[in-house]
Amino acid sequence: MSILVVGSVAFDSIETPFGQVDEVLGGSATYFSTSASFFTDVNLVAVVGEDFPDEHREMLAGRGVDLSGLQTSPGQTFRWKGRYGFDLNEAHTLDTQLNVFESFSPEIPESYKNAEYVFLANIDPELQLEVLQQVEKPKLIACDTMNFWIEGKREALVKTLAHVDVLVINEGEARQLADQPNLRKAAQTILALGPKSLVIKRGEYGVIMFSEHSIFSAPAYPLEEVFDPTGAGDTFAGGFIGYLASTRNLSEANIRQAIVFGSVMASFNVESFSLDRLKTLEYKEIEDRFREMKLLSDFEPIN
Amino acid sequence: MSILVVGSVAFDSIETPFGQVDEVLGGSATYFSTSASFFTDVNLVAVVGEDFPDEHREMLAGRGVDLSGLQTSPGQTFRWKGRYGFDLNEAHTLDTQLNVFESFSPEIPESYKNAEYVFLANIDPELQLEVLQQVEKPKLIACDTMNFWIEGKREALVKTLAHVDVLVINEGEARQLADQPNLRKAAQTILALGPKSLVIKRGEYGVIMFSEHSIFSAPAYPLEEVFDPTGAGDTFAGGFIGYLASTRNLSEANIRQAIVFGSVMASFNVESFSLDRLKTLEYKEIEDRFREMKLLSDFEPIN
Repeated sequence: MSILVVGSVAFDSIETPFGQVDEVLGGSATYFSTSASFFTDVNLVAVVGEDFPDEHREMLAGRGVDLSGLQTSPGQTFRWKGRYGFDLNEAHTLDTQLNVFESFSPEIPESYKNAEYVFLANIDPELQLEVLQQVEKPKLIACDTMNFWIEGKREALVKTLAHVDVLVINEGEARQLADQPNLRKAAQTILALGPKSLVIKRGEYGVIMFSEHSIFSAPAYPLEEVFDPTGAGDTFAGGFIGYLASTRNLSEANIRQAIVFGSVMASFNVESFSLDRLKTLEYKEIEDRFREMKLLSDFEPIN
Repeated sequence: MSILVVGSVAFDSIETPFGQVDEVLGGSATYFSTSASFFTDVNLVAVVGEDFPDEHREMLAGRGVDLSGLQTSPGQTFRWKGRYGFDLNEAHTLDTQLNVFESFSPEIPESYKNAEYVFLANIDPELQLEVLQQVEKPKLIACDTMNFWIEGKREALVKTLAHVDVLVINEGEARQLADQPNLRKAAQTILALGPKSLVIKRGEYGVIMFSEHSIFSAPAYPLEEVFDPTGAGDTFAGGFIGYLASTRNLSEANIRQAIVFGSVMASFNVESFSLDRLKTLEYKEIEDRFREMKLLSDFEPIN
């Protein structure tokens, strides 16, 4: 079952304590699609400029990502420049050039409109709503957002959330959205806005998911080398939604496994710059690390 | 099987966003003993001043804590004053009066010397070594420390660690002790100093344990109200070592369960000031929350 993702495709320039790269392939939709492509087909909607090279299109298409929804507009592709210190949890933005992304208006190709699984990556909530108006009747709508939209477009965001099944955001965003420092209380506030599940990304501390009747906490895979955290959240979402779409099963047990698959994908992605690690990754490695995650978190029940 | 704990007994004055208390019962050995007392008998070695009231002795003795090792010295009991903001992970010390604790020299009563389980709470590592010279042949020695000793008495601390089986510290302390920001690498450095296991406390993110051949990550119980985090680490250690001592089983599976019991105890303790919650806690509640922890972190394996 294929997934529709709407988000950004970008060139990233990144400095970490371990190295530096210029204008490598990045963007939320790119990370999401590449990650999800290990589990299912992906239909991508995004915009790039005339400077976007065939090489990147070929990489994505070669992974089963359909690019009929990738618009090419006159001008330059979105560029982001950031730096991480030894605290790899926090990115310091040095420069953002929206370029063609500034006037992005998502057009969903006819062939995508019956999408059963939809991921709205972190874009303007008004655009997220436009996407939802174009799709027919998805089984699952998941969405991401960020502090910028929570602060500046709260009303539109709340409208979007009323249609969303799973909101995937980070811890600070959850607290900000609910205006509540306690995460469990924040989750109640957010679930009341519409989502059936709230998946909170906590970086090296893993993921915690709140639903009406359950809470699930998954650790992050403890890596010896975290090289570049860029894209970890979208890579997580790609593995998470990708596994759900491939299994077509929205039971609690399957959603929990999907979260662990998402965590596994993110753990691989941060081992290199850009999508370098995902490009060489094999499905067997994903399964092996899933099993390690089970060993990592397992303990015996009591009677 | 009884446990020997050596640490502090104190009066704490605490401000949190939710309230304020003056000169309530606190101290590492107090929290540890009260928590461990739900699982086994505890022999406590510490010092108090002449101002220490019978009421507190009676509470501890009533819980099966042997106080023959509790010295009373001329002068006042150790006092600590601290404040927490909405980020309850960080205590801001407002005042410390060591008083009788300044010249504390742990004397282990004869009847304690054959202790099989020993917990060296966060005191001067030279005093921790003195304790180890007085005990006969413990099956398990666990120990805590802090940034102050890591910086100021590293040599003595390293000597102590050579005798320690389980080091229980927080994340920042682990990074500082190993001089290494990556936790997995830091763990390797620390295990090379002697401990067979390193248990790292991460506050609301739970606990991660590193041993030579395994890693175990346990979530924290997600509370709706964290009232006062004071003593959480020692309460964790009390449940952890208490369960190990009561079961006399140092298998990996049992150590994992012990970590969850420790996490459960800490989660109760932070629900009120001082030891108030532990005073009303019943064993059935501990078991119920253990089961909730299992539900919280469980997911199905893959084939």
